Amino acid sequence: MAVYTEIIKLKTKSQKIYNITNKVEEIVRSSDIEDGLCLVFVPGSTGAILLNEDDPMLLEDLKDVLEHIASKETLWHHPENAHSHIRASLIGSEKLIPVHAKKLVLGQWQDIMFCEFDTRSRERQVIVSVIG
Amino acid sequence: MAVYTEIIKLKTKSQKIYNITNKVEEIVRSSDIEDGLCLVFVPGSTGAILLNEDDPMLLEDLKDVLEHIASKETLWHHPENAHSHIRASLIGSEKLIPVHAKKLVLGQWQDIMFCEFDTRSRERQVIVSVIG
Amino acid sequence: MAVYTEIIKLKTKSQKIYNITNKVEEIVRSSDIEDGLCLVFVPGSTGAILLNEDDPMLLEDLKDVLEHIASKETLWHHPENAHSHIRASLIGSEKLIPVHAKKLVLGQWQDIMFCEFDTRSRERQVIVSVIG
Repeated sequence: MAVYTEIIKLKTKSQKIYNITNKVEEIVRSSDIEDGLCLVFVPGSTGAILLNEDDPMLLEDLKDVLEHIASKETLWHHPENAHSHIRASLIGSEKLIPVHAKKLVLGQWQDIMFCEFDTRSRERQVIVSVIG
Repeated sequence: MAVYTEIIKLKTKSQKIYNITNKVEEIVRSSDIEDGLCLVFVPGSTGAILLNEDDPMLLEDLKDVLEHIASKETLWHHPENAHSHIRASLIGSEKLIPVHAKKLVLGQWQDIMFCEFDTRSRERQVIVSVIG
Repeated sequence: MAVYTEIIKLKTKSQKIYNITNKVEEIVRSSDIEDGLCLVFVPGSTGAILLNEDDPMLLEDLKDVLEHIASKETLWHHPENAHSHIRASLIGSEKLIPVHAKKLVLGQWQDIMFCEFDTRSRERQVIVSVIG
C-alpha cells in the first residue's frame, strides 16, 4: 500500500474552467500505483472539480445554469462572492476516480476540470492523492 | 491492503433510475475486505450515482427539480443532451461509502442508485472498487 | 496500511448547520495515520456534509438557494420531507479530504459541516474513516 501526492499549480481567471486531465494522468503514472483510487481535491471554497465533458458549448450551458441558481447580480448576505461559494458547493471540491493499470478509469467524454468560481484571478493548488 | 474491483453492467432507459445497492453489497462481500471504503463510479458524463431513498414518489420529485434546473425543452448551446450532462454534474459521477465487517455502512433509507440522464437507452458500466 | 473509524454523534435541529472540523481533525490525530484520505459520511438521506466556509451570512445565502430549488412550501409527491432529501442529494452525503502529517489538508476558509435538512430534530451519527 502506498499514498502518493502531488500538487498541480494553476494561475486562474474568474469564471474560467481548466482541463487538468492530462496533469492528473501524469501524476497517476508517476505514482507507480497499479490499482487504486485517485483523489483530486481543491483546498479552497470558491473553486471546484468538475468531472464531465470538456466541450466549450456545454460549459457555457453549465455556467448559465449556475448563474440562474446563484447569480452574480443577486444581493447576497455574504459580501462579494457568495455566488462563488454556492456554485463550488454544488459542483463539489473533490472527485475520486478509479485507477487501473496505472491509468485513470474515465469515460471517453469524461474530463477532470478545475472551475474557478471566484470573482478574481487566483493562484490555485489542486491536490492529487493516489492510494493503492 | 487490497483493492478489489468489479463492474456492474446495466441496460438502461432514458431518465430511469436503477437501484444497485444489492449488487454493490454483493461485490463488497466478494472482496473479502473487512474494513475500508467502497467507491461506486460511472465512467461517463450523462449518468450519475445517487445515494438517497429509493422511493418512487421522491424520485419523481427529484426529476421535477432537475427538469426545472436543466430542462429538456431549453435551447442549449451543446446539442441534444446538455441537460443530461448538467444533471449528471449536479448529482455526481461517484459516491464513496464506508465498509465495516464486509458490509456497506448505509442508513436505513439510503440506497445506491444509477441515474440514466441521457436521452437514449445505453449499455452502462458502473465500476465498484473496494479498498481496505 | 490501516483503516481507522470513529463516529461523531450530534443532536441536531431542523435546518441547522454544524461545524465538525475540529472533531474530524481530532479523529485524524487519533488515527495516527501520517498520509492518506479521510472520509466524512452521513448514513442517512436527509442530512449532508458541506465542505465550505463557515460564515453565518453565507450559510443563510445557501439556505435561500436551496429553498428556491426545493422549497418547503411545494406540494411534493413524497410526503413531508421531500425537500430534505433533495437538498441532501445536491450537497451530498460524503466528502473526502487528503491527510498529510496527521492533519486534514484544508483551505483557510474551508470547513467541514453537517447540514440537518430534515424537518425535525434528530440524533445523528457521522462516520469518519481515515485510510492510509
